[in-house]
Amino acid sequence: MRLTTMTDYSLRLLMYVAQRPEQLCTIAEVAAAYGISEAHLMKITHQLGLAGFIETVRGKGGGMRLARAPGEINLGAVVRSVEPDFNLVECLATGNTCTLTGQCRLTAIVSGALRQFLDHLDGHTLADVLPAHGDGPAQARTMKLQPLRRRPAVSESGK
Amino acid sequence: MRLTTMTDYSLRLLMYVAQRPEQLCTIAEVAAAYGISEAHLMKITHQLGLAGFIETVRGKGGGMRLARAPGEINLGAVVRSVEPDFNLVECLATGNTCTLTGQCRLTAIVSGALRQFLDHLDGHTLADVLPAHGDGPAQARTMKLQPLRRRPAVSESGK
Repeated sequence: MRLTTMTDYSLRLLMYVAQRPEQLCTIAEVAAAYGISEAHLMKITHQLGLAGFIETVRGKGGGMRLARAPGEINLGAVVRSVEPDFNLVECLATGNTCTLTGQCRLTAIVSGALRQFLDHLDGHTLADVLPAHGDGPAQARTMKLQPLRRRPAVSESGK
Repeated sequence: MRLTTMTDYSLRLLMYVAQRPEQLCTIAEVAAAYGISEAHLMKITHQLGLAGFIETVRGKGGGMRLARAPGEINLGAVVRSVEPDFNLVECLATGNTCTLTGQCRLTAIVSGALRQFLDHLDGHTLADVLPAHGDGPAQARTMKLQPLRRRPAVSESGK
């Protein structure tokens, strides 16, 4: 059982940007920091922008920053917005051709399990996953975490 | 987010076999009933046999049956035994190269969500997903479900 690389990279990109609230981050530097593809990150940046998690500034010296404080970016919301689907079994998908459809109760049970999974993520925000110390990947570890526009609420709910 | 086809087909195979407690089911008839690949089902049958969910009888007239009553086959146990991995994000996998490893708290939160998912499945058995009525896929819908070790109402032939 896996989330897509898109979702994995989205979470990492948000973590990277969250730790640099005073600067505009570029796709190139995120790609270099994690050793991942710029092409993937371009697509992800676009999607996270549309979903209202980041905002981008165009032109020379441009880049991206969080559109909200880390404590206001819910992990369940990020995963729901980036993951292409949650079709854990065929009967959860459109175009389902399983001959058991309508007769079996697997759909309801798997949907219940998925709800539990997402509920758990809904109890956490980006602030909860940020490294406790340091400045993140491939960077000097001296920089302190900076909140975006307000003090961090420290760890939130439901841990 | 998806489970593999292997897991989806394993659950369907178990449901098919569970509804025919008085007969040995063949891979060919399960494949025909669901319109899915025999090659996939061969691999699955082998794995479900090793895991102790089904038993097979070789030779002419042979086939498979459940090795335990449906109420004793836990869905969480089936999914854990068939799904190749639960590496929802890279940091859950062996060979993980994420540069954040050891610094971030995503691993713990995603692991917690996965635990909730599996806990929900652990609360259900194969008996819970069997169709309430009918004889399963592509069959006359007149046959009542029969408990394990009792006579079926009609003979089956997969399709």
